[in-house]
Amino acid sequence: MSLSEFGLIERFFCQQTLKNSTTQLGIGDDCALLNIPSGFELAITTDTMVENVHFFAGTDPEQLGHKLLAVNLSDLAAMGAKPISVTLALTLPKVNEDWLAAFAKGFLNLAQHYGVELIGGDTTSGPLTLTVQALGLVPQGKALKRSSAKVGDFIYVTGHLGDAGLGLKITQGYACNHPDEALKHFNCPNPQIETGLVLIGVANACIDISDGLAADLGHILQKSQVGACLDWEALPLSSAVQTYIIDTDDWLLPLNAGDDYELCFTVSPEKAAQLSVLCHKIGIIEAQSGLRLHKSGTLSPLEMTGFEHFN
Amino acid sequence: MSLSEFGLIERFFCQQTLKNSTTQLGIGDDCALLNIPSGFELAITTDTMVENVHFFAGTDPEQLGHKLLAVNLSDLAAMGAKPISVTLALTLPKVNEDWLAAFAKGFLNLAQHYGVELIGGDTTSGPLTLTVQALGLVPQGKALKRSSAKVGDFIYVTGHLGDAGLGLKITQGYACNHPDEALKHFNCPNPQIETGLVLIGVANACIDISDGLAADLGHILQKSQVGACLDWEALPLSSAVQTYIIDTDDWLLPLNAGDDYELCFTVSPEKAAQLSVLCHKIGIIEAQSGLRLHKSGTLSPLEMTGFEHFN
Repeated sequence: MSLSEFGLIERFFCQQTLKNSTTQLGIGDDCALLNIPSGFELAITTDTMVENVHFFAGTDPEQLGHKLLAVNLSDLAAMGAKPISVTLALTLPKVNEDWLAAFAKGFLNLAQHYGVELIGGDTTSGPLTLTVQALGLVPQGKALKRSSAKVGDFIYVTGHLGDAGLGLKITQGYACNHPDEALKHFNCPNPQIETGLVLIGVANACIDISDGLAADLGHILQKSQVGACLDWEALPLSSAVQTYIIDTDDWLLPLNAGDDYELCFTVSPEKAAQLSVLCHKIGIIEAQSGLRLHKSGTLSPLEMTGFEHFN
Repeated sequence: MSLSEFGLIERFFCQQTLKNSTTQLGIGDDCALLNIPSGFELAITTDTMVENVHFFAGTDPEQLGHKLLAVNLSDLAAMGAKPISVTLALTLPKVNEDWLAAFAKGFLNLAQHYGVELIGGDTTSGPLTLTVQALGLVPQGKALKRSSAKVGDFIYVTGHLGDAGLGLKITQGYACNHPDEALKHFNCPNPQIETGLVLIGVANACIDISDGLAADLGHILQKSQVGACLDWEALPLSSAVQTYIIDTDDWLLPLNAGDDYELCFTVSPEKAAQLSVLCHKIGIIEAQSGLRLHKSGTLSPLEMTGFEHFN
């Protein structure tokens, strides 16, 4: 990769016309400069995706660009932060203009949708590895943390559980009659930004479901030093996932599969009426540590493990 | 790499005792949260280092941890920003405890020295790729940009030129009688943070020398729409680099070699007396575009190209 090829790559990402009011100086100097308005905290997160680990070789580059940004914005959503800007560190084995154009399209379309400005990055030569750092604003002292769940809180999730996990199974060969919705969730997840913003002042604790409900709810339980009980009958499942479970008896999928990028959050019963977002009540926070599941009239312990990329 | 191994990795980087006053929430939630004091802009930069591209396989991990952070802090120095915090995205082929302990030591020692808190990160499995995003504070409207050089400005550099380039040659087999200083510059560069802070209000334009003086000064010239003339006799060269040039006649090394991480900056003549940092005047900004070099009584054009990692 030569310096002129770097220029080429930069051109794909400089097409963004959006300028965010927080951006004082964007791409093109040693650093970007932001003006952070008073009364807000800056929320920061970073996530990396590696070829053959987080995505298959040959993944559609437009969907990959979308998903890379989406998984980072999802972490902002989980804090109730409004995304403002991102940097992109792109390690590429070679310069493929078609691939880059499609990747940039997927990435920048989602950025545009949420008013997120690409303010900097680094392009290097090497095995395909993609790292985003996303920045957002959250009203001072109002961020949704993992550590604030209270005994008696109701537990909610947005959207369906396990669709992305089913999408992965379909990609790996599972025959599904209606695969589109599951594949869309797996390849092209949408961060729950609007929901996160609305949960400020209502939810006590929040996390995004990237590693599976049991594992991610487990982080809330651990940080908040509480336990929880889930109700199997209350889990929101798409008809495709319901059919998959009847087919395979793999009922752990919606509890352990990753990549859903829905939000899981807890709300005090007295605030439950204030909830103005589409969500599903799936359980309750309890004083007894650990995670338990009510299923078919039986209460059983549920392991707080989830999707492990590397096993 | 299993989830328990991720926990292991996190432990190496959670040893940092330093807490920065800007940090509202550090490692351990979906995002970190920062309080940005009023009157300051936030400076943001990101740089990736890839094995076998930016560093050789088998590079000493403690030096690698130091260098990875140093090259990122160097970008903050070039804006005159005070570093406050960093995130670290670590892609590792396997978990090697000794390697991780040494890498974390080099990284965190430099972080501690500059009061920089590690506030988040991501650990993934894959080919060794290291991405840092560094955040700093700069007084509102005072950042040192590439675009503000004025015709008539004197051009300065800190430190010596070409030492890191010579260090690379030594690593590749060049026999040098006194290799220590050059190797130290190549393996363990120091970001010019203090100098950057002192240049606020004095320098017009500034950049750090990562790709070589000619290329990096070229960025200032391009962004400021000016040209420059350098004086060969004025270039600050260590005795090892002087000996190398006599040996090899490769006099372009101090102009084109990368990885020095010194600062190159321009100052109006009337402010030159205010300069309180150790630096060397090497040329002058001119209206005529392009870069020129005075050498042995001759004025010749100098290409604004530098070190290309991928050629």
